[in-house]
Amino acid sequence: MNDDTELAVRPHERDPEDGLALIDDPAFIERVADAIEAGRDDELRVLIADFHETDMARLLEALPAPARPKLIELLGSDFDFTALTELDETVRVQILEELETKTVVEGMRDLDSDDAVYILEDLDDADKQEILGQLPLTERAALQRSLDYPEESAGRRMQTEFIALPPFWTVGQTLDYIGETEGLPETFFELFVVDPTYRLTGSVPLDRLLRTKRGVKLGDVVTPDRHVVQATDDQEDVARVFERYNLISAPVVDGAGRLVGVLTVDDIVDVIQEEADEDVKALGGVAADEELSDSFWYIAKSRFSWLLVNLIAANLASFVIALFEDELQRLVALAVLMPIVASQGGNAATQTMTVAVRAIATRELRASNARRVIARELLVGLFNGVVFAVIMAAVVFARFGVADLGFIIALAMIINLVAAALGGILVPLTLNKMGVDPAVSSGPFVTTITDVIGFFAFLGIASLWF
Amino acid sequence: MNDDTELAVRPHERDPEDGLALIDDPAFIERVADAIEAGRDDELRVLIADFHETDMARLLEALPAPARPKLIELLGSDFDFTALTELDETVRVQILEELETKTVVEGMRDLDSDDAVYILEDLDDADKQEILGQLPLTERAALQRSLDYPEESAGRRMQTEFIALPPFWTVGQTLDYIGETEGLPETFFELFVVDPTYRLTGSVPLDRLLRTKRGVKLGDVVTPDRHVVQATDDQEDVARVFERYNLISAPVVDGAGRLVGVLTVDDIVDVIQEEADEDVKALGGVAADEELSDSFWYIAKSRFSWLLVNLIAANLASFVIALFEDELQRLVALAVLMPIVASQGGNAATQTMTVAVRAIATRELRASNARRVIARELLVGLFNGVVFAVIMAAVVFARFGVADLGFIIALAMIINLVAAALGGILVPLTLNKMGVDPAVSSGPFVTTITDVIGFFAFLGIASLWF
Repeated sequence: MNDDTELAVRPHERDPEDGLALIDDPAFIERVADAIEAGRDDELRVLIADFHETDMARLLEALPAPARPKLIELLGSDFDFTALTELDETVRVQILEELETKTVVEGMRDLDSDDAVYILEDLDDADKQEILGQLPLTERAALQRSLDYPEESAGRRMQTEFIALPPFWTVGQTLDYIGETEGLPETFFELFVVDPTYRLTGSVPLDRLLRTKRGVKLGDVVTPDRHVVQATDDQEDVARVFERYNLISAPVVDGAGRLVGVLTVDDIVDVIQEEADEDVKALGGVAADEELSDSFWYIAKSRFSWLLVNLIAANLASFVIALFEDELQRLVALAVLMPIVASQGGNAATQTMTVAVRAIATRELRASNARRVIARELLVGLFNGVVFAVIMAAVVFARFGVADLGFIIALAMIINLVAAALGGILVPLTLNKMGVDPAVSSGPFVTTITDVIGFFAFLGIASLWF
Repeated sequence: MNDDTELAVRPHERDPEDGLALIDDPAFIERVADAIEAGRDDELRVLIADFHETDMARLLEALPAPARPKLIELLGSDFDFTALTELDETVRVQILEELETKTVVEGMRDLDSDDAVYILEDLDDADKQEILGQLPLTERAALQRSLDYPEESAGRRMQTEFIALPPFWTVGQTLDYIGETEGLPETFFELFVVDPTYRLTGSVPLDRLLRTKRGVKLGDVVTPDRHVVQATDDQEDVARVFERYNLISAPVVDGAGRLVGVLTVDDIVDVIQEEADEDVKALGGVAADEELSDSFWYIAKSRFSWLLVNLIAANLASFVIALFEDELQRLVALAVLMPIVASQGGNAATQTMTVAVRAIATRELRASNARRVIARELLVGLFNGVVFAVIMAAVVFARFGVADLGFIIALAMIINLVAAALGGILVPLTLNKMGVDPAVSSGPFVTTITDVIGFFAFLGIASLWF
């Protein structure tokens, strides 16, 4: 089969997953890179011009850094700048810094306002102003207004293209207007009804509009939105509301209640994904903004600080061990066994902490059920503590033939698993009450607690016993 | 102010977050519980009948178990069964088991098909058939068809209410049909165009319909959907496609390409959220289906198995330590310091593992970039290993005044941090290749590796040295 014709298959004949499969093929990437190197834009168009923006982003990430801006310049107006919003931040900033301002300005003009803001907000002020300065006045003003809202706010994520109509318009008038007007938003799911000062009255979903008689006034078919978003609201809070109330879109208003934009759930999906990602990473001791494309140096620095905190905690535990040097010298089995107690406590605490951190993030753990959850975790800790105490007592007796040692490790195990349960839930709850993100900060506290209590309980009881 | 009038505020005057605030107030919960106990359904209606389904779910969870089904029976047709879809599974099953079949059947009739399936699928077969048997034939057939698809498949999550029209209909005919027909789906964002055998041609979003002249045929305005979902597709794969291509909805077809349903992004948001939640929990050693409302007994059992695996790993590490009993006896400082090496390795490995597991889940880590990421992690491990080696050498020299000991711990630290980086990325990649979920199984392997190598390197070098 001829390789060229195979790759020239047009979009509608291609499986939608094909773009992704191609990107995983090193031969394909090399072929694209060669075409870029040689400036063969015709070949490039055949190879990749029909890629979905998301696949284009994956392709850009797979290419060597110098080839990325060249690809965009070569494709010209065939390159959809929306692809840049799907890139890792590091790669996006690198590309934007190397592209000619003219290319960026051209590309930005075709974007929805929310995508344009997403791309602009990571640039430094000089670059931002240079690009804004070359955009037409109305676009510039809309983007500037979004950029004036705080980072990670609804105002940054909203689309400023929407249809807002007065309540005295009839359904018929509205349908005609939509049918005849050029330059309406590319996609929309509802109309908004506003008063003369642009204050939001409510919305009319398109399906309801279609089911209403032409003579009816919008004011009589509009329903007030129960979930109006403030432009200054934090995007995570907004995501929570979307998720809780299964929203598809929501109007965004400014401090005076004037409609300034609309948020749709596809933007919110990214926020939910990011937020969950941050929790996973934070619990694993990784910076929330670490990305797979980050440089060695950036990652090494960001991982270092967490490990340093852990090193301090581990040294603290080591000082506890040092208190019992005499006992360790006398009975070396204590040294052999003590990491088991600490490790089992650490793992039990991590279980409880994981559940607590996640339940706090999803607002499932609240004042009303905290006491019940704490009691349950304590019971689980006590129960599993007793079970593992019995197991370890048997193991230790089998290994060392000393019944006393089995009893000591059993007692230490129970104490440490109860402490683990308490620490695992109280530390995140307390941090949260203090306004500190429990996902980021709970880990070191909790493992320090279980290490210190684990070693202290085991070696302390041993020193009293022998 | 009079308490009763305050609570009687109607929905449109209430802040949308109010329902949630009320549920956090123990006095309010008690008042609702009292009203249920005394059977005062009028008071209940004033208190809570205007709650959004999600808030109603939170309220049900906050109430004592026996009060939950009573509340539903008391509210009768004022209770929206959609609330049941927002409950933790444990609570939902408890309520459904205690409700009268008649109440459940009545409540199910008002539900969208996807919500009805969501509620039915957790019931045992006898209950399921009893409820299905009392539903009208068409509803029963639609639900049964969805239930025949595998668990966690698109077929289970899809809505079977949609509008499908033939390509020869004009836009005008379509608009009139929508305006005049009773019993259309409650909400819809697009129409589907199908051939006489119900095979999907494509879809027409409502906004496009509104912008097209009345005389145009649907067949001329329809676009083929690039992202058609198979009813048997796994919901997580579908979620990935929604996320990647920013979809609002997608048609679902059966094996023969016939349109059988539609998936909307609000259902997918729940899947994305669940999936992220499962990753967080799995990495923390908690069962994916553990819920805050689960009983003590269920939690204790589910946590136990993970801790048992950890106990075995910890005992393995302990056997490694036992190999060096003589050295430990001779130099007790080794016992004091050895947990530091192991713990630092464990934490570094967890960092790498977290990044790897998450990148595998989001399909960011692929064959094409695996080598680069492995090399980077190794470099980071080596770099941080050297830095912490220097720090610990200094600390140990200060504490014990023995330069040799500082050198030994430094060397062990470098070895263990490099091993941690390798294990942290290779274990998840290997498990994934073997078809095992790396989020669930990586942890125990990785910590065993760092514990064993940490103790072995530190004590082994010491035994060679002294």
